[in-house]
Amino acid sequence: MHLLMDGYCDNKELLQDEEYLRNLLLEYPGRIGMIRISEPFIIRYDDCAPEEWGISGFVFLAESHIAIHTFVERYFVNIDVFSCKDFDTDHAAEDLRQRFRLTQSRVALVEREWSRFKPGTKNPTRYAYHGL
Amino acid sequence: MHLLMDGYCDNKELLQDEEYLRNLLLEYPGRIGMIRISEPFIIRYDDCAPEEWGISGFVFLAESHIAIHTFVERYFVNIDVFSCKDFDTDHAAEDLRQRFRLTQSRVALVEREWSRFKPGTKNPTRYAYHGL
Repeated sequence: MHLLMDGYCDNKELLQDEEYLRNLLLEYPGRIGMIRISEPFIIRYDDCAPEEWGISGFVFLAESHIAIHTFVERYFVNIDVFSCKDFDTDHAAEDLRQRFRLTQSRVALVEREWSRFKPGTKNPTRYAYHGL
Repeated sequence: MHLLMDGYCDNKELLQDEEYLRNLLLEYPGRIGMIRISEPFIIRYDDCAPEEWGISGFVFLAESHIAIHTFVERYFVNIDVFSCKDFDTDHAAEDLRQRFRLTQSRVALVEREWSRFKPGTKNPTRYAYHGL
């Protein structure tokens, strides 16, 4: 299951805290029952328009990956938790909302594992909004 | 826009070719008008059940990231192209289908950029199947 979370955080310091992001990527996989298989990769990108700058982090999992991108001046963050195994997406989403102090957020869940593609299958993407 | 592509490739050698994956992640961003801001990170994961082993790659973009995971014994690959800017998703999908010689694939497109969350907005995820 691939959890895609996008939301607003009113804490600019948090959104540019590389150490916070690194520690989250070190610790969070284990909390949701996943196996981290790399160190976190953290990057700061500010060679851009002022409203686009932010930090990004990525970690490989046995189950796939977690990726996070912040846009500091826009108070915005994109989070991907992609696992080839099922996991408790409600718990994961709530945990992330708290960790990033999201005031508003949207979660999309996309099923990535197909034993056979079935055109016309009921749309497996589910959306949930919070804070609106 | 976030392009999520999942498909079958009948070429096992390709699915475990770390050099091919590295070169793809070096070169592909420029081909779809994106800016690569890191070297590719490649990992091989085989400390698992035999049907789960594969290689993974990731690269940071100014626009977000590209992530790829293969499952060699299952002839399966998951691809994410996540850009905070619009891009030609049809071209990108076709290019990826060719590069991974996908015989069957599904593309999902998820809009990640929201200026304001609107519950009840028409489901922005679009799916397209190929090869079935």
